[in-house]
Amino acid sequence: MRYALNGGKRLRGFLVLESARLFGHGNALPAACAVEALHAYSLVHDDLPAMDDDDMRRGQPTVHKAWDEATAILAGDALQTLAFELLTDPALGPAERRIALVRGLAQASGAEGMVLGQALDIAAETASTPLTLDQITRLQAGKTGALIRFSAEAGALIAGEDPAPLRQYATALGLAFQIADDILDVTGDPEKAGKKLGKDAAAGKATFVSLLGLDEARARAKSLVAEASDALAPYGPKAATLIEAAHFVVTRES
Amino acid sequence: MRYALNGGKRLRGFLVLESARLFGHGNALPAACAVEALHAYSLVHDDLPAMDDDDMRRGQPTVHKAWDEATAILAGDALQTLAFELLTDPALGPAERRIALVRGLAQASGAEGMVLGQALDIAAETASTPLTLDQITRLQAGKTGALIRFSAEAGALIAGEDPAPLRQYATALGLAFQIADDILDVTGDPEKAGKKLGKDAAAGKATFVSLLGLDEARARAKSLVAEASDALAPYGPKAATLIEAAHFVVTRES
Repeated sequence: MRYALNGGKRLRGFLVLESARLFGHGNALPAACAVEALHAYSLVHDDLPAMDDDDMRRGQPTVHKAWDEATAILAGDALQTLAFELLTDPALGPAERRIALVRGLAQASGAEGMVLGQALDIAAETASTPLTLDQITRLQAGKTGALIRFSAEAGALIAGEDPAPLRQYATALGLAFQIADDILDVTGDPEKAGKKLGKDAAAGKATFVSLLGLDEARARAKSLVAEASDALAPYGPKAATLIEAAHFVVTRES
Repeated sequence: MRYALNGGKRLRGFLVLESARLFGHGNALPAACAVEALHAYSLVHDDLPAMDDDDMRRGQPTVHKAWDEATAILAGDALQTLAFELLTDPALGPAERRIALVRGLAQASGAEGMVLGQALDIAAETASTPLTLDQITRLQAGKTGALIRFSAEAGALIAGEDPAPLRQYATALGLAFQIADDILDVTGDPEKAGKKLGKDAAAGKATFVSLLGLDEARARAKSLVAEASDALAPYGPKAATLIEAAHFVVTRES
């Protein structure tokens, strides 16, 4: 479990801490750890031979390569459990708000969120026709978007404030993130990315790049970053770091 | 997910409902569903080829047989998520108590509970010497005991009452349950059990039966049932159904 949490960008944990900071809440660390544990579980399971069958992740062998499949299944399972346990930490404030976090994380990551996205992704591999842009967008909204959205909303949930502007920010950010991922899969350096690239093209999978072309995909990502930044206007200069993060998401190399 | 929840004894859900009833609490259903979803997830993952590699469960093909491994991994993942989401249901009472349920379920089922037990079980398969009675007892306390204990304690947590007598009841019950399982594995009817039997003996695995012999295992299970029943004395005749359940656990055929 510790190995699976090594490295990574920790974007989701960062979003929790920064969104909480908007409201002057400094004790969001257990929630940041929770989304990172949840994300790590999803990577460990997605990398399994029966799923995406990946050998490298975050610059090191995947868990089932370093140990074995049974260990990877169990480590992922227990990382998900740990995520929910972390959200019960009293440092996160009144029980009512911690319950809102538990519900929010469950809805973002379960059968109507992240797991749905992954299931659609796997179904697409054996579909007779490539996905359309609408279908890819829906798939992404589950697979990566839901947890990114929850991470950004978490600060508002902890503070008991309206999460609407953060939701708008994170919805655009999540889509920009996935478009940037598809661009990286084509143009990136596997060394810097810490994982194998070019897999989607090799598998003939529809991606934002295959559907829009590289230039249009880049333009779309850029306009989503602008949309994400605009959504944070209500918070004024306090939101500068979150706005920087949106720019980082589309310029990153890993 | 629905398929994986078919059938079974629903012992854990029953323990939640009956323990809540001791305190006059009639709205424990979401918590009962939560422990059943959690238990179903653990069965789906344990049955995977990389784990126990079972083809039948609850009288029907296992999820990875009826669909495929990726679907089984994802269905199990989302069943765990669902379990935690169900515990946020306002019908379960004040948020503070729902948080206690989330924490309790996480501790019972994660890296220091059920998943630890399963990891020890898998490690035992490749160990050079069979497990001792102490080691088997520790393994069982995690693999099946922790969730049974949480299920019985849940009623007290929902009612905001002391869970100590129920914990004592369920600790004895959980051990009796596992001893009965080992006896069933040797003497049972696969048709009635709804799964393959005789696997432990075939694999040369240490069990309560291989370590104690059939007669001593039966005597041990019987004395644990008496211990479980005695623990419920503080509740008087209200505990009759839970006491009946303890007797059922060691006489069941599935």
